[in-house]
Amino acid sequence: MFPEAESVAPAMTAVLTTVLTEGPLSRVALARRLGLSQAAVTKAARPLIEQGYLQELAATERSGPGAGRPASPLAICADREFFVGVKITADELIGVVCDLGAQVRASAHRPLPHTDVDHVLTELGHLVDELLDGPGDYRARTRRLGLAVSGDVDRATGLVRYSPFLHWHDVPLQDLAEKNTSLTVTVENDVKALTTAEHWFGEGVGAESFALVTVGSGIGCGLVVNGRLVSGAHGVAGEIGHVGVDVNGPACHCGGRGCVEAIAGTDAIVRAVGRPGLTFEEAVTLARAGDTAVGAVFARAGDAIGSGIAAVANLVGPSRIVVSGEGLSAYDLFEPHIRAGFQRQAFGAVAQCPLSVRPLPFEQWARGAATVSIQAFVAA
Amino acid sequence: MFPEAESVAPAMTAVLTTVLTEGPLSRVALARRLGLSQAAVTKAARPLIEQGYLQELAATERSGPGAGRPASPLAICADREFFVGVKITADELIGVVCDLGAQVRASAHRPLPHTDVDHVLTELGHLVDELLDGPGDYRARTRRLGLAVSGDVDRATGLVRYSPFLHWHDVPLQDLAEKNTSLTVTVENDVKALTTAEHWFGEGVGAESFALVTVGSGIGCGLVVNGRLVSGAHGVAGEIGHVGVDVNGPACHCGGRGCVEAIAGTDAIVRAVGRPGLTFEEAVTLARAGDTAVGAVFARAGDAIGSGIAAVANLVGPSRIVVSGEGLSAYDLFEPHIRAGFQRQAFGAVAQCPLSVRPLPFEQWARGAATVSIQAFVAA
Ligand SMILES: [Zn+2]
Ligand SMILES: [Zn+2]
Repeated sequence: MFPEAESVAPAMTAVLTTVLTEGPLSRVALARRLGLSQAAVTKAARPLIEQGYLQELAATERSGPGAGRPASPLAICADREFFVGVKITADELIGVVCDLGAQVRASAHRPLPHTDVDHVLTELGHLVDELLDGPGDYRARTRRLGLAVSGDVDRATGLVRYSPFLHWHDVPLQDLAEKNTSLTVTVENDVKALTTAEHWFGEGVGAESFALVTVGSGIGCGLVVNGRLVSGAHGVAGEIGHVGVDVNGPACHCGGRGCVEAIAGTDAIVRAVGRPGLTFEEAVTLARAGDTAVGAVFARAGDAIGSGIAAVANLVGPSRIVVSGEGLSAYDLFEPHIRAGFQRQAFGAVAQCPLSVRPLPFEQWARGAATVSIQAFVAA
Repeated sequence: MFPEAESVAPAMTAVLTTVLTEGPLSRVALARRLGLSQAAVTKAARPLIEQGYLQELAATERSGPGAGRPASPLAICADREFFVGVKITADELIGVVCDLGAQVRASAHRPLPHTDVDHVLTELGHLVDELLDGPGDYRARTRRLGLAVSGDVDRATGLVRYSPFLHWHDVPLQDLAEKNTSLTVTVENDVKALTTAEHWFGEGVGAESFALVTVGSGIGCGLVVNGRLVSGAHGVAGEIGHVGVDVNGPACHCGGRGCVEAIAGTDAIVRAVGRPGLTFEEAVTLARAGDTAVGAVFARAGDAIGSGIAAVANLVGPSRIVVSGEGLSAYDLFEPHIRAGFQRQAFGAVAQCPLSVRPLPFEQWARGAATVSIQAFVAA
């Protein structure tokens, strides 16, 4: 009933994950890191090497005193398998092909005149074909597709419960996209996907906690706490955009009042400026030119973002916070107010939490989607 | 350099923790739960049995088909060691003696006319003596003391960085209390200590995530995310009291504006009612008698608490939220507004998160402190 030799699958997943995210690593180092015996690591690595996912690098000389036989580090074979990632926005599909190491190998875009589900699926099929049948010949070694969508997504079932920007309710996107592409599909909230990329392949590798805040039409937040992505027991987490920071503030599309997103999302800013036909970019230009009314809208928005970030920091205490997103083209207008709002509301030692700002090329969203499909592959 | 036989200490900690929180459990069940071999569990359990912390219960009959030899579950010996826990409030020390299973065996109080550190330490010494030298004869089997303090506490060093209610800044409480009591002292933030008790010995055992919100002079929140207490990289976490929910609201002692605590703490409510000499209890009586102005103060406070709880839920997505605390004597006045504020600001599926209310006897705070010292013992 309780056989001595347990299934090797969990150890395989652990070894592959650790080599992917922290490799190359020797079997000895892997054993220490994973709390496994060297024999267990060797046993788990063997099928991964045989199937071509891992390779043994040339043995390196051990230099320390008392060093035994030289260690042969294990590394991934990045070209063994490819993964498609697509971010679905309200007006565009952005797709990439990544290798097993999450390096982007190809990318493509397709405009979306509207977001009817059938139309999006048809365009998604074309985009995947374009990516896989173009130069690089990825088709033969690609079995998986990751999709990133803003809003409330149930990753386990691939259901998009609610996506305000796409106007989708209860769309079984995983099932539909699997029929359409013949790939194994994983669907994830876009900010969680981006955070996963940061946690597995970015600066967040090995971090116990961090927060990634994205500023754009929506304001999102990905969280890693106690070493793992925060998923939310009900599928929702990191919704900094709907933290209420002004109980007398504007109504939000979510039904809330004074949500960060209702004050500081790019659409909310355009609305608050209140000049018919004016775009976000034009509002930025006006504020930079010294228009005090428009400047005040950006000041209020930055303060709301800073206050929301302080809520994240006060509640979860991440070791660092990265602010990113396409809305940051106007960061010069936001920044002092984000920092002021954060400093005012950050409690005690939380005020020491470093707040860094980083650009976010749009392709990174699609890479995040591909990362989620890499993760699903490794877990399988 | 990397001996086959690793130190048995981590396995001992894991076995003791699991039997403490989920026992009695057979070695087979422990091995499965911990991902260890049965041999490793047996080896780790042996010294714990020899030292009297664990005992083997009478073998139970196995009833299932194919059952092998009967299993002898391991259970803790609750009387093997006792732990003192003391909560330090602004006007009182509350102390308990708990056994290894966190059952309260004795309790005592001492008034604190003021919170000068020297005075508090003297009174703490008297309280500990009273608890340990009274009936029960706990002294001989007690080596540890846990202290719970509100505010910004660095558990690793036992430093109270800032406690607004005690007016303490940078008090090295662990060192001072160890000198004063000759016990090994652990200091923790009071809400984290309470959450630890819930996670190790309460309804939170085995939970991946939950939140415990305490309502009183301060508004606090303990969080368990991804199966572990959230500590905060800078030592601060769960500070729901300083989440800003009204950017135009009252100034808070933390320097923030419109913090939940600045609107909904019992002191803030008394201040907002604005009638000289009126106590919180009198304000409750007035509101219950239909005073609309006072009722509006409670309504605003409840809404702020609900909005703060929604911030927790939107960001972390706990599986459930428990609201507790001494401020809940007025829960009839708060409740509809807490629920309304929560429902308004809860995003999408987060609104389904169950919100339950539970009384919090003051002794529970001291039990939380004792729990933290049990945890420190188990880790040692
Ligand atoms: Zn909202
Ligand atoms: Zn405050």
